[in-house]
Amino acid sequence: MEPRPPRGFRDFPPDIMILRKDLISRLERVFQRYGFDPIDTPALEYWETLAGKYGEEAESRLIWRFTDKWSGREYALRYDLTVPMARFIALHRDMPLPFKRYHIGPVWRHEEPQKGRYREFYQCDADIVGSPYPEADAEIVNLVVDALKELGFKRGFRVRLNDRRLLSGVFEEELGIRGPVLNVYRAIDKLDKIGVEGVRRELEKLGLGEGLIEKIMNIISIEGEPGEVLDMIESRYGSNKRVAEAIGHLRGVIELVEDPSSVEVDMSLVRGLDYYTGPILEVVLDEPRIGSVAGGGRYDNLIGLFTKKGIPATGASIGIERIIDAGLELGIYKLDKKTVTMASIIVLSRDHYRYAWKVASTLRRLGVNTRIDLGRTSPRVQRRKAQRLGIRYLIYIGESEAGKGTLTIYDTITGERVEAGISEEERIKEILG
Amino acid sequence: MEPRPPRGFRDFPPDIMILRKDLISRLERVFQRYGFDPIDTPALEYWETLAGKYGEEAESRLIWRFTDKWSGREYALRYDLTVPMARFIALHRDMPLPFKRYHIGPVWRHEEPQKGRYREFYQCDADIVGSPYPEADAEIVNLVVDALKELGFKRGFRVRLNDRRLLSGVFEEELGIRGPVLNVYRAIDKLDKIGVEGVRRELEKLGLGEGLIEKIMNIISIEGEPGEVLDMIESRYGSNKRVAEAIGHLRGVIELVEDPSSVEVDMSLVRGLDYYTGPILEVVLDEPRIGSVAGGGRYDNLIGLFTKKGIPATGASIGIERIIDAGLELGIYKLDKKTVTMASIIVLSRDHYRYAWKVASTLRRLGVNTRIDLGRTSPRVQRRKAQRLGIRYLIYIGESEAGKGTLTIYDTITGERVEAGISEEERIKEILG
Repeated sequence: MEPRPPRGFRDFPPDIMILRKDLISRLERVFQRYGFDPIDTPALEYWETLAGKYGEEAESRLIWRFTDKWSGREYALRYDLTVPMARFIALHRDMPLPFKRYHIGPVWRHEEPQKGRYREFYQCDADIVGSPYPEADAEIVNLVVDALKELGFKRGFRVRLNDRRLLSGVFEEELGIRGPVLNVYRAIDKLDKIGVEGVRRELEKLGLGEGLIEKIMNIISIEGEPGEVLDMIESRYGSNKRVAEAIGHLRGVIELVEDPSSVEVDMSLVRGLDYYTGPILEVVLDEPRIGSVAGGGRYDNLIGLFTKKGIPATGASIGIERIIDAGLELGIYKLDKKTVTMASIIVLSRDHYRYAWKVASTLRRLGVNTRIDLGRTSPRVQRRKAQRLGIRYLIYIGESEAGKGTLTIYDTITGERVEAGISEEERIKEILG
Repeated sequence: MEPRPPRGFRDFPPDIMILRKDLISRLERVFQRYGFDPIDTPALEYWETLAGKYGEEAESRLIWRFTDKWSGREYALRYDLTVPMARFIALHRDMPLPFKRYHIGPVWRHEEPQKGRYREFYQCDADIVGSPYPEADAEIVNLVVDALKELGFKRGFRVRLNDRRLLSGVFEEELGIRGPVLNVYRAIDKLDKIGVEGVRRELEKLGLGEGLIEKIMNIISIEGEPGEVLDMIESRYGSNKRVAEAIGHLRGVIELVEDPSSVEVDMSLVRGLDYYTGPILEVVLDEPRIGSVAGGGRYDNLIGLFTKKGIPATGASIGIERIIDAGLELGIYKLDKKTVTMASIIVLSRDHYRYAWKVASTLRRLGVNTRIDLGRTSPRVQRRKAQRLGIRYLIYIGESEAGKGTLTIYDTITGERVEAGISEEERIKEILG
């Protein structure tokens, strides 16, 4: 039998897991510092819960969806963490608002697998439910920037900012189209992937005339320092109600942004998902060019699909999978840790195995991650295995140690060799600390 | 729309998540101390990977299994973490043996939901791959006992131990049946749930005669202090090759067990899964009576189903879901933490919001989990919200603080009120420490 995981799915051996767990726990600390608390929701949802939330492509093609043989009910693997959260909020109406939750876990998409694109991947989301104000959006921007820094990207990234109302207001003025034009947004959303000409062709496919397309291309070429861009748009379209609203809101956000130099307003940013209603954001790295590594925005109507009363919400998702790929490529991360084990006991003779076992127990009790030979191999083989895993301390146990009640600690980095009594616990902790 | 998770699935609000994450990280520390490293595998596997591994009931009824509409391939949600690990080992032949991995994550079972039984639940597994020796099984026993203690169960539990070879050897001698009798094991496995009479009826259903059933019931009533039980079985059945092997192996295990008083040999322990080949173990609590909270054993043939060459393996799974239920029932755990936030900034006037924002940034930079008002509410409402979440420190920011560049820290537990300068970072850390 071919022992492969399904196509587009991955196994994570210890070296990758150790890196992933480290990054995820750093991210968690940032979320917690900003006052977010963890929740979890099931991998499976009823299909009805996800239906009608993500747009046509997701619904028809990208959601893992199946009919349960026993009950006949339709289930789906969660496609993101946002819609399940909206359902969660609707069910748990006792959560005091604003409710700030983070959620880190896998989602599933029926994508065609390719480099950097998987059918199962982690999302790391932080959302604020219950505040319609710019300060909530600003907190999300600051959180995302801090998260990137905490993950080792000190600079070399930009936060692109826009507002769905800005887009629809300007489109209304220039094109005479009322309301959000989701199919146009989806075409523009592909800009990074297919370029300017590609977007032009997509818009042609939608049946738009050349004049209209030209105007759209002009609009989405607007980008730059937030103050300047917003002033310019205000002077041209400020009489439009939606535009005015968006500009006021975005100014409120930018005023509270910790690091304004990293932020720009970019009219070509639309975000692919249907549910956004206000500010939207994306973070892109200068290098490597791999699309956005974080994204989010305000979605004031999504929770209302589950509750009678609408509840405003805003949030972002940190794209940990792309960040890992980018960090490895840039050399910020290394897969150089094959184990979290600190000490490996080298049993010099089977006669003293029970004493070696006792030493292992002692070290573990002192909090030292410890291995002991379980394969009845020679000291040479034991040493080689420890070396292959990159375990720092070798603990030699032979006749001398067993006789005296000691252990010999060899530090493979410094080359130092120390003998300690098994009851000298403080000293052992210090040496192996 | 009804905002429910699917039947048998659960949402975890922050209070439960905070507890779950704490317990899981304690468990992880134990796994790591014993020299285990983390891996992960996909939620989905090809159906062929799981087929033929778990026994008839699991295959026909309990595995979540579906045909992908697009590819026509059959997928299954993982039913446990052991079979995926066996597949993982077969694929990653470069892992040095013995390979010690832990894996903590959800599995899915199409059970009829009931109290304490869910369709999605976490398993926490530690396994040693590549050692046929009793020391590997002994390490698993010690690990499980330490894990229980680390999770707060200082006493009040027993480790039940048996060996599949002991069972099949004794059955061979007494009943003349050769080889493992899986359907008999499955009947015996229900002892805790259906009692002695229930097992008798199950055995009748299998078509066994009264004499045979009587003998089986006699065999499975053997239990007690390991040394005594093993001596007794040896004196009666020691000439049987399988029995002799098992007794030698179990003695080797017990010799290395840290806390022998917590261990008993119990011939009624069979474990439900088909793949065990040697020692098997289960941990049961004295109170409450909820079945086993950990279980495992040796499965020397499972990995061989994926590789040409068989690789011996042994391990255990800590039943964190039952442990949580039991710990809550016993009062060992409490759901008394609604947030990980330590400090809530009370903005006394909107005029000083930007200064309050700066204070929030500073506290977060110092590592203090901090909230700030995002709802433009009155100080009274802000205070009430902080109280409802049980946030310890209230940070008052008003005209006086903004003017002087200070913050007023109120400790809701001690009732102390301290004013500190925003640049007195060490002092702030100490107060909020």
